[in-house]
Amino acid sequence: MKKLINAHDRVVADALRGVQAAHGDRLRVSFDPYMIVRADAPVSGKVGLISGGGSGHEPLHGGYVGRGMLDAACPGEVFTSPTPDQMLAATKAVDSGAGVVHIVKNYTGDVLNFEMAADLAGADGVQVETVLTNDDVAVEDSLYTAGRRGVGVTVLVEKIAGAAAEAGRSLQEVAEIGRRVNAQGRSMGMALTPCITPASGHPSFELGDDEVEIGIGIHGEPGRFKEKAGTAAQIAERLLTPIVEDLPFSSGDRVLAFVNGMGGTPLLELYIVYAEVARLAGEHGLRIERNLVGNYITSLEMQGCSITLLKLDDELLEYWDAPVDTPALRWGA
Amino acid sequence: MKKLINAHDRVVADALRGVQAAHGDRLRVSFDPYMIVRADAPVSGKVGLISGGGSGHEPLHGGYVGRGMLDAACPGEVFTSPTPDQMLAATKAVDSGAGVVHIVKNYTGDVLNFEMAADLAGADGVQVETVLTNDDVAVEDSLYTAGRRGVGVTVLVEKIAGAAAEAGRSLQEVAEIGRRVNAQGRSMGMALTPCITPASGHPSFELGDDEVEIGIGIHGEPGRFKEKAGTAAQIAERLLTPIVEDLPFSSGDRVLAFVNGMGGTPLLELYIVYAEVARLAGEHGLRIERNLVGNYITSLEMQGCSITLLKLDDELLEYWDAPVDTPALRWGA
Repeated sequence: MKKLINAHDRVVADALRGVQAAHGDRLRVSFDPYMIVRADAPVSGKVGLISGGGSGHEPLHGGYVGRGMLDAACPGEVFTSPTPDQMLAATKAVDSGAGVVHIVKNYTGDVLNFEMAADLAGADGVQVETVLTNDDVAVEDSLYTAGRRGVGVTVLVEKIAGAAAEAGRSLQEVAEIGRRVNAQGRSMGMALTPCITPASGHPSFELGDDEVEIGIGIHGEPGRFKEKAGTAAQIAERLLTPIVEDLPFSSGDRVLAFVNGMGGTPLLELYIVYAEVARLAGEHGLRIERNLVGNYITSLEMQGCSITLLKLDDELLEYWDAPVDTPALRWGA
Repeated sequence: MKKLINAHDRVVADALRGVQAAHGDRLRVSFDPYMIVRADAPVSGKVGLISGGGSGHEPLHGGYVGRGMLDAACPGEVFTSPTPDQMLAATKAVDSGAGVVHIVKNYTGDVLNFEMAADLAGADGVQVETVLTNDDVAVEDSLYTAGRRGVGVTVLVEKIAGAAAEAGRSLQEVAEIGRRVNAQGRSMGMALTPCITPASGHPSFELGDDEVEIGIGIHGEPGRFKEKAGTAAQIAERLLTPIVEDLPFSSGDRVLAFVNGMGGTPLLELYIVYAEVARLAGEHGLRIERNLVGNYITSLEMQGCSITLLKLDDELLEYWDAPVDTPALRWGA
């Protein structure tokens, strides 16, 4: 295992030092417990948004803290849920009295710990609403979940619900919009290579020299099946067909198409996949109105990609386009 | 070799289809010859900026076409110089009469072809100024260069000279500013793994399981030496010391610090490296006023990083902060 780290048990702490050094002008980094918080939090009158999860998926979630998106992120150790005390501290740090939305990817540890944090925050008088993401159509139950895994749509929930909160919408409204994004979004991913967690030092799964895994999770959890590596066109079709079948799209529907890199795949290849996604979406009669291509929810250095489609309506489109000012997603600001 | 491609001889054409599908609202993509051009080019009265080079370094250069940065990019095949006819077509496409700046990384093929294009454009009445980037302190001459290689500083030249052009500065002024950025910037890179070009199908060089290469180029050209993989702190010191020694920095100087990923390294690790760079820069008495952390000039799926330091002055800082609206770099717009 070769990695740009100092020690396998200091990976998250050292990366947070880097985040503090790079973005300390607009983010506050806490080391006990780990938190990345908007420097101006709590924002008066605004609903707070927090998320969190295991590290190793950067820029998710810490890269999305800032105006128009998250108020705070709670990083756990690599591929390990953060703890309830982190989530509680973040909840309190961002609550202006308007309440706090927890955006939670559907993994058992994350769900349990966020539930506990919500209960504790509630006992302290903070109103909390939870938005669960479970957009991965690959498998129903998996290694770390009951039900579907939360993957690419999480980025879109954070952006769109974040803009709704920034626009002054109420706790219930922000949560409803976040749930709508999750309900109208579907994802599926694949891997060309496994990833290696710093603590384990060995690949998370095995793939032959000519094999890919279809339906992979963002922690290297098993997917639907392995097969011989095909063309980008074949892979795009493998991922897009289950997505389209799962969410009843109608011809003429407007969508946001998101091609996400797993961390180790060149942008050049992601654009090749995007070309195929655009072609296939057109064949289904879908109108791609917005797109996102790049590494936004990753799995360390895994090579591969995921595809997310989100059905748009006027409101979601307006909030997607709204200004955002975070380390990893920035426009209009 | 496993890659998200359709065929090794269609990689660039297919990726350009993806760029067209994703960004066709603001970029024009030409397939004969390959060009990515601002949709509103030529911009009346504005100096045009073009760059180009082999593909495989994305988002460089095509990801930097847009308001406040490049007017056009000419992608060659992977790690292969574009041709003079591409550069000439791009030059003519962006010339509003105010002249065109060619930003050229110092590789023999790129330099010769851009020179020929400049001559041909001149014969057609287009004024061209060339800004050569040669910021890599690792080696003096190398596999593809006489003199130093152009690497990370190229991104900064494109941003800062692009802002100067957008602000209405003259051809000579824009070129002078670009040359100043190159003169005040230094870079050095390292690799944990080689990359594989689609055409060759095998790694560009060999590295042992516990080895890294210090001073590597962006095409996998040999660096200064191989050594046993050290910590992120040691690697940052290996790269930063030659940079600081080469450019006479004075204590108290203001700098932009840029930690760039080679394409296959997780953002988590780049922030760990950034923490070390910030610490070391502080020890040298440098004041980091701006930073950039991420994959901006890559080498396919190579794992590793490069560090660039740019000495800032008020003018460079103003143009760095100016709005930019491109697929890969976007703020204030």
